[in-house]
Amino acid sequence: MLITLLTDFGNSDYFVGAMKGVILTINPHANIVDITHEIPPQDILSGAFTLGCVYQNFPEGTIHVAVVDPGVGSTRRAIIVATSNQFFVGPDNGLFSFIYERETNARVFHVTNEDYFRQPVSATFHGRDVFAPTAAALSTGVAPEKLGVEINDYVRLAEIRPRLASDRTIEAAIIHIDHFGNCITNLTRDDISEEMIERGATLKVNGQEIKSFRRFFAEGEGNQESPFAIWGSAGFLEIAAFRASAAKILSAQTGHLVKVTSDK
Amino acid sequence: MLITLLTDFGNSDYFVGAMKGVILTINPHANIVDITHEIPPQDILSGAFTLGCVYQNFPEGTIHVAVVDPGVGSTRRAIIVATSNQFFVGPDNGLFSFIYERETNARVFHVTNEDYFRQPVSATFHGRDVFAPTAAALSTGVAPEKLGVEINDYVRLAEIRPRLASDRTIEAAIIHIDHFGNCITNLTRDDISEEMIERGATLKVNGQEIKSFRRFFAEGEGNQESPFAIWGSAGFLEIAAFRASAAKILSAQTGHLVKVTSDK
Amino acid sequence: MLITLLTDFGNSDYFVGAMKGVILTINPHANIVDITHEIPPQDILSGAFTLGCVYQNFPEGTIHVAVVDPGVGSTRRAIIVATSNQFFVGPDNGLFSFIYERETNARVFHVTNEDYFRQPVSATFHGRDVFAPTAAALSTGVAPEKLGVEINDYVRLAEIRPRLASDRTIEAAIIHIDHFGNCITNLTRDDISEEMIERGATLKVNGQEIKSFRRFFAEGEGNQESPFAIWGSAGFLEIAAFRASAAKILSAQTGHLVKVTSDK
Repeated sequence: MLITLLTDFGNSDYFVGAMKGVILTINPHANIVDITHEIPPQDILSGAFTLGCVYQNFPEGTIHVAVVDPGVGSTRRAIIVATSNQFFVGPDNGLFSFIYERETNARVFHVTNEDYFRQPVSATFHGRDVFAPTAAALSTGVAPEKLGVEINDYVRLAEIRPRLASDRTIEAAIIHIDHFGNCITNLTRDDISEEMIERGATLKVNGQEIKSFRRFFAEGEGNQESPFAIWGSAGFLEIAAFRASAAKILSAQTGHLVKVTSDK
Repeated sequence: MLITLLTDFGNSDYFVGAMKGVILTINPHANIVDITHEIPPQDILSGAFTLGCVYQNFPEGTIHVAVVDPGVGSTRRAIIVATSNQFFVGPDNGLFSFIYERETNARVFHVTNEDYFRQPVSATFHGRDVFAPTAAALSTGVAPEKLGVEINDYVRLAEIRPRLASDRTIEAAIIHIDHFGNCITNLTRDDISEEMIERGATLKVNGQEIKSFRRFFAEGEGNQESPFAIWGSAGFLEIAAFRASAAKILSAQTGHLVKVTSDK
Repeated sequence: MLITLLTDFGNSDYFVGAMKGVILTINPHANIVDITHEIPPQDILSGAFTLGCVYQNFPEGTIHVAVVDPGVGSTRRAIIVATSNQFFVGPDNGLFSFIYERETNARVFHVTNEDYFRQPVSATFHGRDVFAPTAAALSTGVAPEKLGVEINDYVRLAEIRPRLASDRTIEAAIIHIDHFGNCITNLTRDDISEEMIERGATLKVNGQEIKSFRRFFAEGEGNQESPFAIWGSAGFLEIAAFRASAAKILSAQTGHLVKVTSDK
């Protein structure tokens, strides 16, 4: 059974190893795959984006454990999200917002059954004590109904969708900055049409305008200093620069406003 | 058979891949799990701490390979530590100090049988040439007695325990700084009682005092600039700051003195 | 079936997770091993070096996927390299230069059969859409002849070998800087003999001379500020410093010239 891990724990501590040990003690046949442990610390939006980009590439039955959890130890709930063919386990803080948006039949369970938790449950490391053993229990065939109770008031992030500010203006946001410095926005092809791009849509970030749209990174090489827009592999519009970091050029950070204006 | 890897090799070179290839060539059925490869270069204490935090989460029979090895190529010995239900393989430089402290029946073997080494043994990469093939041999059922000779004069680190400086003063140390900047001390609940905390125990690091003790990170949010003490998930007292790096605030580094004073 | 991954994608994004998900969807029995995802962005030479150091440690039948791919989306070809007992999958940009040099019977195939690609193929992420599914197809037994057509005009990097500038001078290069700051050159024992070293060969990097050769890192401890030369575990001459970064001391970067002079 495939279990993926996505956290902001970094790769330098014992945190990830502890989660793997707990899972493999409960289910020695689990196949554990790291998605990433380098979500920026406590950046729920970036974690939600990354999970949303990748879960559909995994086979049926995969159990995704995601832990970006600034509220650990407080009253925020542990949840299981059950879609038609996968499970998600983690804190109820919006981390699964892209799953809710795309998997409209998803059911959400507040994990209340402590029998499967690692005891004693620490106040600071629910990745090891709550989420890992809950995922391991699911992987051995325990039903989510046995682990918790269904809820409907789970947390969704507002930032995953852009806002139509006027007829000609969309207020979007940078939701992730990747390893290469590409700035991923929350804009999809539903928000910006090919027509809008052809008529000269303009992006504005931190006072700088981006008017160039490219089809692939190496198109029109040479002009490194000019960031351009490109449809990224995750289906979102990205602001990139050839062999350079668009984030550095634009002084851009996650959460920054991207203003789109067009003649349409 | 489960084999874990913990090193200071980083994740950017071929070192870890080479160890995995060597293991999988000898034992194609080995299930290799990374604990971390980002122990600060040659920081044996931090490696010992990390391994000590995690080995008990792994199932019986697990073989842990740990390589933080500034003395590679010199006369330091390669060893196997055999506890009642797990194995540890690495250099004899104190890296297994927490294992010795907790697994009092552990037996230690100096690895002398070069038949299992990868030949020729390089002077600089015993992770690949000595430790990985020794662990792989153990995973195929070779007994430690066949790989080496039992010894008793193995190296232990003094820094893993605090020192009682006076009736009211404990001299402790920071033994690890984690990904979030939390400073983990070598203080356990055996060193500081709840009574001492209630009567107002004070920690002093680099001239700055910490008097606040919390139960979980998000308790009393908002005052980011004040580091607080908290019992960490590994059972040690940590100095932390909410959504901030305590290490930065305190200019703290591994090995720094933590002075504890109390009225007891 | 063993599939290794080597990329410059970093460990902080969804890229690597997506490749793993694609592979495991096609072949649930694949055993995926990370070599590294921290090749410096778009540094083909460093990727070629790293892959060259490690592939021989893996067992027969291993499939290596390598993606350092600044030309993604342009006309550069996707290729499969088939040696006598392993496969390599990636872009045709020189990334497999060390394989070509050592595996002289290697056959190279231009991947033209899009039936196995993930559809639609994005312009920016062939790791997920082309290379991962091609490797997964190989792992299920599809022959390279069925995936593409054999070619002979594949790309080789010139920089993998030093140049004899005169009777007494070799112009070599730094081809990789490792996690510890050791500078790996392209010099092998075929280029510098023990006799040359004994007669006082001198390396010159960025105006600084290195005349000391060591057998292991800890030999002659204490003089941290003096970089020395040492035969590295990959068979190349490295410039190192004890418990210090030679790269920092020498302000060295990948691609920098290493001039070797000797009396021979």
